Amino acid sequence: MREFVFFGGKGGVGKTTVSSAYALKCARAGVDTLVVSTDPAHSTSDVFDQQFSDDPSPVEGVDDLHAMEIDPEEEVERHLMETRRAMGDQVSPAMVNEIDRQIEMAHQTPGAYESALFDRFIGVMRENDYERVVFDTSPTGGTLRLLSLPDLLEGWIDRLMHKRKQSVKLFERAAIGNNEPRRMMEGDPIIARLQERKELFEFAGDALRNRATFYLVVNPDELSIRETSRAVENLLDAGLSVEGLAVNKLTPEPDPDEQGRGARFLRDRVETERERLDTLRTEFDQPLVAEIETRVAEVKGNLLADVADELSIDVAADPAA
Amino acid sequence: MREFVFFGGKGGVGKTTVSSAYALKCARAGVDTLVVSTDPAHSTSDVFDQQFSDDPSPVEGVDDLHAMEIDPEEEVERHLMETRRAMGDQVSPAMVNEIDRQIEMAHQTPGAYESALFDRFIGVMRENDYERVVFDTSPTGGTLRLLSLPDLLEGWIDRLMHKRKQSVKLFERAAIGNNEPRRMMEGDPIIARLQERKELFEFAGDALRNRATFYLVVNPDELSIRETSRAVENLLDAGLSVEGLAVNKLTPEPDPDEQGRGARFLRDRVETERERLDTLRTEFDQPLVAEIETRVAEVKGNLLADVADELSIDVAADPAA
Repeated sequence: MREFVFFGGKGGVGKTTVSSAYALKCARAGVDTLVVSTDPAHSTSDVFDQQFSDDPSPVEGVDDLHAMEIDPEEEVERHLMETRRAMGDQVSPAMVNEIDRQIEMAHQTPGAYESALFDRFIGVMRENDYERVVFDTSPTGGTLRLLSLPDLLEGWIDRLMHKRKQSVKLFERAAIGNNEPRRMMEGDPIIARLQERKELFEFAGDALRNRATFYLVVNPDELSIRETSRAVENLLDAGLSVEGLAVNKLTPEPDPDEQGRGARFLRDRVETERERLDTLRTEFDQPLVAEIETRVAEVKGNLLADVADELSIDVAADPAA
Repeated sequence: MREFVFFGGKGGVGKTTVSSAYALKCARAGVDTLVVSTDPAHSTSDVFDQQFSDDPSPVEGVDDLHAMEIDPEEEVERHLMETRRAMGDQVSPAMVNEIDRQIEMAHQTPGAYESALFDRFIGVMRENDYERVVFDTSPTGGTLRLLSLPDLLEGWIDRLMHKRKQSVKLFERAAIGNNEPRRMMEGDPIIARLQERKELFEFAGDALRNRATFYLVVNPDELSIRETSRAVENLLDAGLSVEGLAVNKLTPEPDPDEQGRGARFLRDRVETERERLDTLRTEFDQPLVAEIETRVAEVKGNLLADVADELSIDVAADPAA
C-alpha cells in the first residue's frame, strides 16, 4: 500500500467511517498512521469519541494512530487571508481595495472550498512524517483538472513569470546612477509566489500519481453508483490509481423465518441491492473491497473495529517506497 | 398558491417524485399545469412512463398536465455556444480564439451548470402560458447570490455600459465627414447584450420573489436535515418564500406482532427517524407538508397518485394573482 490513501465519495456515503476503520486497521498492524478528517459534521472526533484539532494528536487507546481535523470553512477563510496578505506585498495600496473585493467574490464561488482544501492536503502531504496518511475525502472535478493540465498550468505560470521579469527589468533600467531600482528581480514577491505555486502543483501531481492510492465509498443506490462511475473516470483521467470500491449502508436481512410487512420490505430491498452489487462487480474494473451493512447505532468503538475487520484493503507499507 | 412552485433539495432526496406528484395533484384539481424536470437520470419520463423533450408536451391520461425535460449538460453546451456566438458579434476575429479558450474554461467551473440552468428557468418563466409551473429543483447558493445582490449587479452593468458608451462615442467622433463611424451607439451589440442581461436579472428577482413559492424535500437523516437548514437560510436570505418541507424516504414500520432481526432493525430506525421528525418540527419555522414512506418499487402510476394524496400542499391558484 502506498503512503497516502484517499477515500472519496459524495456526502453521506460514509467516507469518515470507512477511512477511520482503515486507519485503525493500519495502526493495529503496527503502521504509524495519521487520519485526516475534513467533515466538520461527522468527524473522526465523533468516531473516536475524542476532540481532535488542526494539529495531529494521538488517538487514546490506539498505538500508532494520530488524527487531525481540517475545517473546510476555516480553511477557505485562511486561504482568503493568505491570498490577501500575499497580494498586499505585491500591489500598490491604491489597488488593494478593488483586489480585496475581487478576492472575496472569488472565494464565494463553489470552487473556493475545494481549492482551499486541496492546498491544505498538499501541505499535509509535504510535511508528512507518518508511514501512512489516510484522508476521508479525495480531490474531485475542479481540483483534478489542475492535475490533468500540468502543461497548461506550467506554460501559464511561465508566461506570467516572463511578463513579470520584463516588467521588473524595466524598473531596473529606470534606476539611475546609485539609486536603488524601485523593483528588483532578486526577491521579487510576485515571481517568488508564482514559483512557489508552480512547485506546489508539480509536487501535488507527483505525490498524487506516484505515492497515493484512491478508494471510493459507494452506497447501493442508483445515484451513488452513477456518481461513483463519474468519480472513477475523473480520477483515472487525471492519471491516479483507483484500487477499489467500498460498499457501505447495505440493508441487513431479516431472520430466515421472519414473516410480515417489515420482513417483506427488507427482503425486497436486499434483493434490489444484490442486483446493484452485481452491477458494481461487472461494470467496474475495481474490486469491491468491503460490503458493510447499515448499523442503526453510530459506528464507533467496537463497531469501528468490526468494520475495520470487514475491509479487504492491504495495510503493509509498499516495499518499493 | 403562486404561479411558480420549486421543489429543492440535494440529489437523491426525491425531488422528481414529489414535484411530479404535486403537478399531478394540481392537474387533477383542474389547474392547467406544466412540470419541468432537470434530472436526466430520474426524470418525469420515468415517472409518467412517457418520453418528454425540451418542449412541453401533454402527459397521456392526465388532463391539464404538460411536462418538459431540461438536460443540464445540453444546457451548458447551448449556453457555451450562445455566449460564443454573442462574443463573435462583439470582438475582432483576432481575439476570438483567446476568448474561446477563456469561455471554455469558464464553462468547466462548477458554477456553469447552475448558471445555464438558471438562464433556462427564467426563459420558461418568462414565456409561461400555464396557471402553474412546477420545477423539480430550485436555485441554490451561487445563483441565489445573484438575486441577493441586485444593486451590485445593476451597478456593475451600469458601469460597464457607461464604459462601453464612452468607447463608442470616441469611434463616432473619429468618423470624419460623410464616413460611417466604425461603431455606433444605436444597435451596439455589447450595449444591447448588457441591457438584455440586466432586464433578465430584474425579471428573475421579481418573478422569484413575488410569483414563486419554494418547498424543500428532505430525507430523515442528519446530513439531509443539515443541508436543508442551510438551503432554507439561503432562500430566505435571498428574500424568497419557503412554505414547507416534504419529508421523503421514511422507513416503514414492521407489522405490530413481527419479531426478529429485521423487525428490530426497522423499529430502531423508525424510532431514530421519529426523533428527526421532531427536530424538523421544532427547529424549522416551515411546516411538514408531507411524510412519505420509502417504496421499494419505483414511484409511478398508482403509487404516484398515492403520493399526490399524501401532500398537504395547496393547489388552488392565488386569488391575488
